[in-house]
Amino acid sequence: MARVVLSTVELPTKAKELLSGLGVELYELPRLSEGDLVNVLLRTEILMCWCGKEFDLTKWINHMPNLRVLQTFSAGVDHLPYSVIPGNVEIYSNAGAYSEPVAEHAWAMILALAKGLHRPVLNAREYLSNEVIMPRKIIKATLLVLGTGGIGREIARIGKEGFKTYNIGINRSGRPAEYFDEVYPTSKLLDVLPRADIVAITLPLNRYTKGLIGERELRALKRGAIVVNVGRGDVVKEDDLYRVLKERQDIRFGTDVWWVYDGREEIPSRTPLTALQNFLGTPHIAGGAQKDIAEYAITRAVENVVRYIRGEKPMNKVDRSDYV
Amino acid sequence: MARVVLSTVELPTKAKELLSGLGVELYELPRLSEGDLVNVLLRTEILMCWCGKEFDLTKWINHMPNLRVLQTFSAGVDHLPYSVIPGNVEIYSNAGAYSEPVAEHAWAMILALAKGLHRPVLNAREYLSNEVIMPRKIIKATLLVLGTGGIGREIARIGKEGFKTYNIGINRSGRPAEYFDEVYPTSKLLDVLPRADIVAITLPLNRYTKGLIGERELRALKRGAIVVNVGRGDVVKEDDLYRVLKERQDIRFGTDVWWVYDGREEIPSRTPLTALQNFLGTPHIAGGAQKDIAEYAITRAVENVVRYIRGEKPMNKVDRSDYV
Repeated sequence: MARVVLSTVELPTKAKELLSGLGVELYELPRLSEGDLVNVLLRTEILMCWCGKEFDLTKWINHMPNLRVLQTFSAGVDHLPYSVIPGNVEIYSNAGAYSEPVAEHAWAMILALAKGLHRPVLNAREYLSNEVIMPRKIIKATLLVLGTGGIGREIARIGKEGFKTYNIGINRSGRPAEYFDEVYPTSKLLDVLPRADIVAITLPLNRYTKGLIGERELRALKRGAIVVNVGRGDVVKEDDLYRVLKERQDIRFGTDVWWVYDGREEIPSRTPLTALQNFLGTPHIAGGAQKDIAEYAITRAVENVVRYIRGEKPMNKVDRSDYV
Repeated sequence: MARVVLSTVELPTKAKELLSGLGVELYELPRLSEGDLVNVLLRTEILMCWCGKEFDLTKWINHMPNLRVLQTFSAGVDHLPYSVIPGNVEIYSNAGAYSEPVAEHAWAMILALAKGLHRPVLNAREYLSNEVIMPRKIIKATLLVLGTGGIGREIARIGKEGFKTYNIGINRSGRPAEYFDEVYPTSKLLDVLPRADIVAITLPLNRYTKGLIGERELRALKRGAIVVNVGRGDVVKEDDLYRVLKERQDIRFGTDVWWVYDGREEIPSRTPLTALQNFLGTPHIAGGAQKDIAEYAITRAVENVVRYIRGEKPMNKVDRSDYV
């Protein structure tokens, strides 16, 4: 009997071709009638989804007794309902699929903040004397990247090759990583924060990273530091961030990730953070920018599923213990 | 008799040291009394100046019969009163002194415009559907740089090494240049404009470049092009720019250089350019950002003067015929 693969979005042609000749039955949620859906769910072995609002996993997982593999299109997997996913289901993330656009966005925020483009004025004297926007040099700066995975690595690469930065990385074990001059384990974070001219947060949200950046860490920042977050909002404590940014006008902070999402569209303000002159926010658009980025990410997820079908070892296996 | 060098600004200690032991008398304008000034001018062989509002060359040049060298602290020399400078005065610019900060500023504007940071909104659907801000990918884009001198070269380097851009250069003769995949003479500009995803204008203002970018050139831009100007405002025709930008919302334009300056501080608006959603402006602050940049630029100018004093060939000799 053919193995059943269900995708919650229509797959690009190129991605579909990867699945042909492998003896699988492919179903795409937008093409299924409600009646067919239950029958397909019953037989589904491999589910590919964002598992966001397009497919409520909590609602449907009880109808999927044959599910063995859950492959997300998203890089982050902090939103999955782990408590209802049976233990025999292997979960794979799409980590790395958005590295290039997200790293570009991180650098766009870093440079915009460094050159005052988040609040430009047309008076040169004011521009050069206002601490919140006065231009800062980037070349040869010390860049600290939290997370040395796909996105962190690409941010470090752009820094080193484009702007000759000196790169310090933080990851769980402190293992060396390409494009980093020094790497430390998370326990050394407070020691290295004061050395950084630029800090880029690329961490996934899990029980090790939640609230990692609070008042103490923010106060440890070097005078004039530029910080951007393209990982997950809750890695930073929002109230602490607001308090420290309001006090320390020398710090400039940019974020594409947030603490509350309303249907992934509107960013609801809980604190007056967005009104601060030393804050720049974008509504989680770094990775989902263009059609070709989404197609690339989806195709990459399908490639990983193909590895599983062929009996090879898929990439990005999620360690569920990180999330419970 | 000692050679007399006059600087219109106080020199950094390091720059002063370069002049010691060379048998010169150094005078700094801010330390001279009005009475001494006339006597010093009479004997000055080498003048170092911005020759902007700090020293009115038109007023004083008749009092400088022994002037042989004019070295500017600025990279551009389009503001000099060529008609009153005697033909036996050699003029040297400070081209290249601001390459790093200005190239960084150019890239900050390019990335800010590419990612919609010039008009960010906090609604993701709007962000991703509004043509004026929707994020565009930079990696592997085709970058066209007008001018392959110090600033153009550094913009090309950051593009190639940081963002893997394919680089096309334009210079007067079309001679090859480092970091450029192709270089063409100015006469080929219209042929290459439609190929560029990003255009960076770094040209000095002279009789060859004035008004080089007009309606025809702007209309030749590829759909979705990002253009930044860090050269001189009048290389672009302001009225044409306003007309085309208003019509073609797909083009995003950033400039640090302007058409009218009011004491080099306020940027007076002549057209409603600054109100356009696809326009980003900063008030000529790219190069003069930080004290250390100014000190570096001044020291570099002094190094060039030292070459002259030692009988070596100074760099950046200005061809006056470009400006008359």
